[in-house]
Amino acid sequence: MELLRSLLFAPGNQPERLRKFPRIDADAFVIDLEDGTPEADKSAARAQLAAIVDELRAQPLGGYLLVRVNDPQSAHVEADLEAALGADIDGIVVPKLETSDQVRYFGAALARARRDRPLAIVGGIESMRGVMAAPTLAGADPHLRALYFGAEDYITDIGGQRTPAGLEVLYARSQVVLAARAAGLAAIDQAVVEIRDETRFRDDAGQGRQLGYGGKICLLPRQVELANALFSPAPAQVAFCRRLLEAAGAAARQGSGVVEFEGRMIDAPLLKRARAVAALADRIGAD
Amino acid sequence: MELLRSLLFAPGNQPERLRKFPRIDADAFVIDLEDGTPEADKSAARAQLAAIVDELRAQPLGGYLLVRVNDPQSAHVEADLEAALGADIDGIVVPKLETSDQVRYFGAALARARRDRPLAIVGGIESMRGVMAAPTLAGADPHLRALYFGAEDYITDIGGQRTPAGLEVLYARSQVVLAARAAGLAAIDQAVVEIRDETRFRDDAGQGRQLGYGGKICLLPRQVELANALFSPAPAQVAFCRRLLEAAGAAARQGSGVVEFEGRMIDAPLLKRARAVAALADRIGAD
Amino acid sequence: MELLRSLLFAPGNQPERLRKFPRIDADAFVIDLEDGTPEADKSAARAQLAAIVDELRAQPLGGYLLVRVNDPQSAHVEADLEAALGADIDGIVVPKLETSDQVRYFGAALARARRDRPLAIVGGIESMRGVMAAPTLAGADPHLRALYFGAEDYITDIGGQRTPAGLEVLYARSQVVLAARAAGLAAIDQAVVEIRDETRFRDDAGQGRQLGYGGKICLLPRQVELANALFSPAPAQVAFCRRLLEAAGAAARQGSGVVEFEGRMIDAPLLKRARAVAALADRIGAD
Repeated sequence: MELLRSLLFAPGNQPERLRKFPRIDADAFVIDLEDGTPEADKSAARAQLAAIVDELRAQPLGGYLLVRVNDPQSAHVEADLEAALGADIDGIVVPKLETSDQVRYFGAALARARRDRPLAIVGGIESMRGVMAAPTLAGADPHLRALYFGAEDYITDIGGQRTPAGLEVLYARSQVVLAARAAGLAAIDQAVVEIRDETRFRDDAGQGRQLGYGGKICLLPRQVELANALFSPAPAQVAFCRRLLEAAGAAARQGSGVVEFEGRMIDAPLLKRARAVAALADRIGAD
Repeated sequence: MELLRSLLFAPGNQPERLRKFPRIDADAFVIDLEDGTPEADKSAARAQLAAIVDELRAQPLGGYLLVRVNDPQSAHVEADLEAALGADIDGIVVPKLETSDQVRYFGAALARARRDRPLAIVGGIESMRGVMAAPTLAGADPHLRALYFGAEDYITDIGGQRTPAGLEVLYARSQVVLAARAAGLAAIDQAVVEIRDETRFRDDAGQGRQLGYGGKICLLPRQVELANALFSPAPAQVAFCRRLLEAAGAAARQGSGVVEFEGRMIDAPLLKRARAVAALADRIGAD
Repeated sequence: MELLRSLLFAPGNQPERLRKFPRIDADAFVIDLEDGTPEADKSAARAQLAAIVDELRAQPLGGYLLVRVNDPQSAHVEADLEAALGADIDGIVVPKLETSDQVRYFGAALARARRDRPLAIVGGIESMRGVMAAPTLAGADPHLRALYFGAEDYITDIGGQRTPAGLEVLYARSQVVLAARAAGLAAIDQAVVEIRDETRFRDDAGQGRQLGYGGKICLLPRQVELANALFSPAPAQVAFCRRLLEAAGAAARQGSGVVEFEGRMIDAPLLKRARAVAALADRIGAD
């Protein structure tokens, strides 16, 4: 799960919306049994899960296919997990993670599922306890491959208020990306619930990217397009990085310690950043 | 201590200011034996404490009555505590908390006091060690019911400088509210020492509220009025929340999973926020 | 190492730049064997280290003389350390500190060196693991006397992007200064790599100072001048603090608890700040 620029959620009880997944270019698709599916529909959504997944798998799908179960403390979680593991998915999304034990519980369930390919957990950090525990739970089980930060739930939990500038969640958002990345996980930034406001989405994604997030929760296809673009390196940047790496490689072959390239000092951080950009561009086929 | 929008401090050696408490609408009143009372007057302030408290208790008082003792490491703290527990107060304010042991020390003292109603500790986090220890000390003793963040003392301790925007304390201020709220305590935001600058107070209280603080330290009656207004839900918001909860309740009785209300998706965070707003409005008698 | 307003780095393989140290007024000078010295030149730089240090010591040098070794996980670090301890330096700079064990490793090496004066470690916190471990490693060994925050390396490590406003590193930068200061260490703020942009340097240093940093990494002599000025107290501030302390002292001798001075309440934080400013001014000879 190295490339998670866009994580698109759709309600598990709305098959017509799930059927649109193959026409969307998200890096991961989430069938949402939690907040997206009203209480009264949860059971039916579970019952039809395997069938809709088979339907989706019959077509080419451009990203991972995941199921979001209800939160670890809810009464639904065991039934959700059973339904999810009975379908041909790539992994689960677990909202409101708060402890390492929860991570290990879901990890053990995935391990018992014995698939031909490893199943992944994408964990949601969206409560006070989750934010506080993020640095420890991030490394609790190898199935955990990504964390997302849920700003709306977090601010409700702490009793605050969201603002466009987002300073009220800067501490939590920074702690989550640090916890995720330090444990080698992908980090997925908060949703933008103002779904018609593209400027807001762009600004928010820009902040997320600066902080170190590699992608964003998306609530509709247009946000997926924006996220894919905003979390991909710009063509000029990719080109610069490739020229730089080539020059550094040539210099190394001649046994010289490269110093300068196109007017900039080449140091270790610059080379490391260039390698990361080029690797990402290779994976997404960008020039 | 669920409602602490305004925590008004007045010097323990100025009875004429303390006598004004009954005319002020603060959620809590603090007779300050620490910074508010000069060294030379501390002993006299302690000696007259029980009498002034009796005088205040003879009148209706709109909020909790507390005594701020000197910091746990000072030479005054035992005498302060004895004087405070000899008066008819609701609890103590302990400045510059830095360890769980300190919290337990004061908790044990309050437990020994054996009052008919439980006594509370409001703890001050206003030093580097306090900020670092806040996540652990917040849960150290059940008498601890609230934490306040003291930005001025904190910035002095770390050797920084205060600014109106407050980015220099955002990390500490965020960590304290998170520590407090995660432990189920009330969280009280920093003082505004520019006592004539209402705009500054409003802006600063707005930030505090966004972060999750439920009230503010107040240095004079006008700040109490502002804090009470700023930390109460707006009438339109209360009305919206009540309509929303009514609609959700009706839908639940009909067995339908509510989806939309006045053009907004109803999800779990929204319902939880609405319930909190309505509960707060009920307590303060707001419409 | 109480006064570290400016920490000037120069490449260990460029003797002509090192020879300029005596003409510069930095509080500390760093001969950089890490990023500043290309791989191919590291061995030669080590070989000539003692000689260049002797040359520098033959002249009056206005600050500490330090050597930055390569990071603890590199293949160079033992040879660097041997070379550094074979020269007449005041201590070492260790980049990319991530664990308490690393701090103790370098502390033990300095202890074995048995100099007539104690040698110091200035540690660099410039990775995700370093930021997370900063609160514990800061107190791991008494030789550690200062920490600097390396924003460029940190943001590369986490995969983010630097901006002029710096919100993307506010959490990390705040955590490092808190860890350092709480352990009684000097705290040195991030470099500004836009070396021709004085406004950027001034703004960035201002933020650092507000956060509690006492100085800045400097990449060229002009930045040293700016840092020395920006991290010294202003003359009017020094004068105010000296008047205040004198008044407070006189009042104390008369046995009165001072209350007001030049229209301001005198409280404990104000007095503490005044003492710190006056002490700093004394050390740097400011009026």
